[in-house]
Amino acid sequence: MAHLTTPEAESILDTPIPVLDKGFVRLVDYMGSDQRIVQAARVSYGAGTKTVREDAALIDYLMRHRHTSPFEMVEFTFHIKAPIFVARQWFRHRTASINEVSARYSVMPDEFYTPAPDALRAQSSKNKQVGEGPLPPEVAQTASQTIAQAQERAYQTYQALLEQGVARELAREVLPVGLYTEFYWKQDLHNLFHFLKLRLDWHAQHEIRAYAKAIAGIVQRVVPLAYAAFEEHLLGGALLSRTELAALRNLIDPEAYRQALEAQGLKPSRVREALEKIFGETE
Amino acid sequence: MAHLTTPEAESILDTPIPVLDKGFVRLVDYMGSDQRIVQAARVSYGAGTKTVREDAALIDYLMRHRHTSPFEMVEFTFHIKAPIFVARQWFRHRTASINEVSARYSVMPDEFYTPAPDALRAQSSKNKQVGEGPLPPEVAQTASQTIAQAQERAYQTYQALLEQGVARELAREVLPVGLYTEFYWKQDLHNLFHFLKLRLDWHAQHEIRAYAKAIAGIVQRVVPLAYAAFEEHLLGGALLSRTELAALRNLIDPEAYRQALEAQGLKPSRVREALEKIFGETE
Amino acid sequence: MAHLTTPEAESILDTPIPVLDKGFVRLVDYMGSDQRIVQAARVSYGAGTKTVREDAALIDYLMRHRHTSPFEMVEFTFHIKAPIFVARQWFRHRTASINEVSARYSVMPDEFYTPAPDALRAQSSKNKQVGEGPLPPEVAQTASQTIAQAQERAYQTYQALLEQGVARELAREVLPVGLYTEFYWKQDLHNLFHFLKLRLDWHAQHEIRAYAKAIAGIVQRVVPLAYAAFEEHLLGGALLSRTELAALRNLIDPEAYRQALEAQGLKPSRVREALEKIFGETE
Amino acid sequence: MAHLTTPEAESILDTPIPVLDKGFVRLVDYMGSDQRIVQAARVSYGAGTKTVREDAALIDYLMRHRHTSPFEMVEFTFHIKAPIFVARQWFRHRTASINEVSARYSVMPDEFYTPAPDALRAQSSKNKQVGEGPLPPEVAQTASQTIAQAQERAYQTYQALLEQGVARELAREVLPVGLYTEFYWKQDLHNLFHFLKLRLDWHAQHEIRAYAKAIAGIVQRVVPLAYAAFEEHLLGGALLSRTELAALRNLIDPEAYRQALEAQGLKPSRVREALEKIFGETE
Repeated sequence: MAHLTTPEAESILDTPIPVLDKGFVRLVDYMGSDQRIVQAARVSYGAGTKTVREDAALIDYLMRHRHTSPFEMVEFTFHIKAPIFVARQWFRHRTASINEVSARYSVMPDEFYTPAPDALRAQSSKNKQVGEGPLPPEVAQTASQTIAQAQERAYQTYQALLEQGVARELAREVLPVGLYTEFYWKQDLHNLFHFLKLRLDWHAQHEIRAYAKAIAGIVQRVVPLAYAAFEEHLLGGALLSRTELAALRNLIDPEAYRQALEAQGLKPSRVREALEKIFGETE
Repeated sequence: MAHLTTPEAESILDTPIPVLDKGFVRLVDYMGSDQRIVQAARVSYGAGTKTVREDAALIDYLMRHRHTSPFEMVEFTFHIKAPIFVARQWFRHRTASINEVSARYSVMPDEFYTPAPDALRAQSSKNKQVGEGPLPPEVAQTASQTIAQAQERAYQTYQALLEQGVARELAREVLPVGLYTEFYWKQDLHNLFHFLKLRLDWHAQHEIRAYAKAIAGIVQRVVPLAYAAFEEHLLGGALLSRTELAALRNLIDPEAYRQALEAQGLKPSRVREALEKIFGETE
Repeated sequence: MAHLTTPEAESILDTPIPVLDKGFVRLVDYMGSDQRIVQAARVSYGAGTKTVREDAALIDYLMRHRHTSPFEMVEFTFHIKAPIFVARQWFRHRTASINEVSARYSVMPDEFYTPAPDALRAQSSKNKQVGEGPLPPEVAQTASQTIAQAQERAYQTYQALLEQGVARELAREVLPVGLYTEFYWKQDLHNLFHFLKLRLDWHAQHEIRAYAKAIAGIVQRVVPLAYAAFEEHLLGGALLSRTELAALRNLIDPEAYRQALEAQGLKPSRVREALEKIFGETE
Repeated sequence: MAHLTTPEAESILDTPIPVLDKGFVRLVDYMGSDQRIVQAARVSYGAGTKTVREDAALIDYLMRHRHTSPFEMVEFTFHIKAPIFVARQWFRHRTASINEVSARYSVMPDEFYTPAPDALRAQSSKNKQVGEGPLPPEVAQTASQTIAQAQERAYQTYQALLEQGVARELAREVLPVGLYTEFYWKQDLHNLFHFLKLRLDWHAQHEIRAYAKAIAGIVQRVVPLAYAAFEEHLLGGALLSRTELAALRNLIDPEAYRQALEAQGLKPSRVREALEKIFGETE
């Protein structure tokens, strides 16, 4: 059987995908494929190999029933270049393996994320946590320049401190969190989906979403069937609360819902499961 | 501020709660409370202390928006006695800390899970994974005796091997997985909720569900507000897929759903979020 | 039995211990004690309660034989205020639970780590990774002022961007990594010892060592016996390689080493183990 | 650059290596190599590619200074067949990903670990935890037969319960922990070394050591340089306590130790580090 590879993934291996003004995402390596998920699951389920269609059905079953361990069997290694404030959000995901450049060991290069005027967002008045909507053009113009100048000054101060003989580990004190850093990031598919679910969400900051989108495109090439199941159940799905389900139960007719589900092309087993979520054990 | 304790939890501290025929769950210690969740979240949200009502609202917000880290701030230590096959399912949850009795070091006592006739279940014909429904009474009677006798014989063989001088680590080879074992189990609230979500589910084996129920009762005493949010959003909720949401979108009228949600007593912000799950960003 | 507390720890609960110019470490809560380590280990070892002296012997045994799971049974919650570059090193320890203030949600206060002239270190010429030795006084004076001015300017720019309506999540771009942040940090004793081993080491950056020292002082109060074992075996010990052991084997006489070990007051079982490390299984 | 493979590893990919009487270890896949460790470390260390000799020196440096994250960049997937009591020890390592056959879903085959007479060990009188030394031949003969008969009887009871319609999840109650199970096991190199350090140790039970040896042989083929560093520093090394170092300091002359270390062929930097472990910062 040997290594499992996917042609669509092989063709982009080692190719940096640009993100933001100077960052990138690069697929360094991967291990496993949709087929590996099926192999691993069938250690648990005792069966042999099957057709692509049956594989897709099994992967969808595993995803929607939250049998997550087979998805852990696929592993990805990325090389990332991103601003420090993005890396800070990224590293809150604790299941990954990380190797980052050290600003104690190396002099950091003069590379900052400098948002263009139209990439600057206004503070949302409704949601304290997010930026939302454009700034007035002249304000955006000024702000973008202000940031660029601040970055230039900060880097000059950094250089001056280094020239005075201040240790690198201390001179970096003055470098802003918009500075680019680089890291290797190794993560399994289950936890990668969790990362994507959170970081593709509209609540996530625009900048890390840009990285999440680049990574999603790569993952989709490596494991197309698993990615489709992820889109169907996690990314495009929603967690409804007990009270919301009760409201729906009062509102809709099971038979009408059954027909609406069938009209969407769902298989009988999926239709039955969908009905059970709202109306409980049926039959 | 010092240690945070909950009177309802203090009263059951160190009291074994019986589970199955010879097992138990005992709360050894806990750290934190609903108030700690709020404290920890407000490091992130920069505000001061609030009323119980506002705490409940914040905890519900954290739960439904999957801001999981504040729930990790509450920690539980249990002492568990359970059959090996239950412990095997239990230990698949890898985030906990565990100390189990060692059958290399100690002679295991003669204690087995021996299901009474009415605790025996038939193999489900629909679902390969589960036992379902009672056996005919005389079959159940015989099977229960068969199990008890097999356990007795196995333990006699174990003793005979020990008497012949066979090392404990090898003599235990003949002990069946129905043997009781004991372990300390330390887990944080976020991962405990994950454990409960999976192990209270009807797909979980009856025996581990019995332990999950005992643990749920304890957790509810320690963090009543967090447990209520868990019940509303995770335990009593359901993950609807993209296709199921599309079927609902075709089927129901937003205004009628709004009224059904309000009839359930949901606050305006919750109603708005519920509508967005099905109909997307509204206005 | 209930909660286990240690008077020496109770007296400092909730008291911020100052670190660096504006930071602190505050013990928010803890669960367990030396006695809990023993309780948990004895689930594995099947024995009853013992004297303090026997507890100390068992804890030392667990530590030197790397039976790490009982140490996981003790848990600590800290509230930390530290510069971002220190937090970045801190968060590489992935087993902890963390809640940090959000610079998306809150306006960050004007607080920076501004090393006084005598806290500034020169770049080491021997070790690329570390700062080492003082700078010439006038250079240190200038550098300290340079850093303070850069911080002041950066904060003014941050304020200007906020006033122009730029979203907080973007305005923070210009804030340097010397800015103070705050976080809740929950960690178990085993992983805390690992943190301390790495961060008390002289290779660690001076600034994070200052925090590690404050934490070590707290831990020592909560679990004095375990901390003593940590000092003896991990902190004060050293990992000798196979080749180094071979060199020692050629150099020293077992009997002389036995006497030197006994002169240090080691018990016979510890002497035997020490001899085995260098000379292998002795009879 | 693409995928990194090692010819010595490719030749054994997918080949089951027999362990015990009916078990095996099979390398399903791997990602990375010695070169990947170096690549990942150099993200941190900012340099380009080097010769094999320089790679070996860097890997040894990373290992002896416990810079463990680059070793996490290499990943292995194994398919294992082992008795349940071995799997129980194995699964205590919580960083791996695991898919095991389910005795709820599948009827377990009639395969047990049946130690031959000369594989049976007597209970150690010195160490409560281990089996040690052979049994008298006729005792071993009898004990081996006793075990085989007990296994046969247990399996017959299992079959009888299944035939009576008892659910698989309950019928398995009577199956002893000597039954073989199978699982996929995915682990990174850093944690794999930790597993090997513990499970190759003479304190580990003979049966899991047999698996650890098979895995060690495979790992050595995939990452020969990293494995050599592991043998030198972790597997063949020893952790000396503060008191043991003090005894050595009193006993030996630094200059004589220096010569003994040089006689072992250690490079000057390694000699200096070795001296510092015992005599502290020199010069």
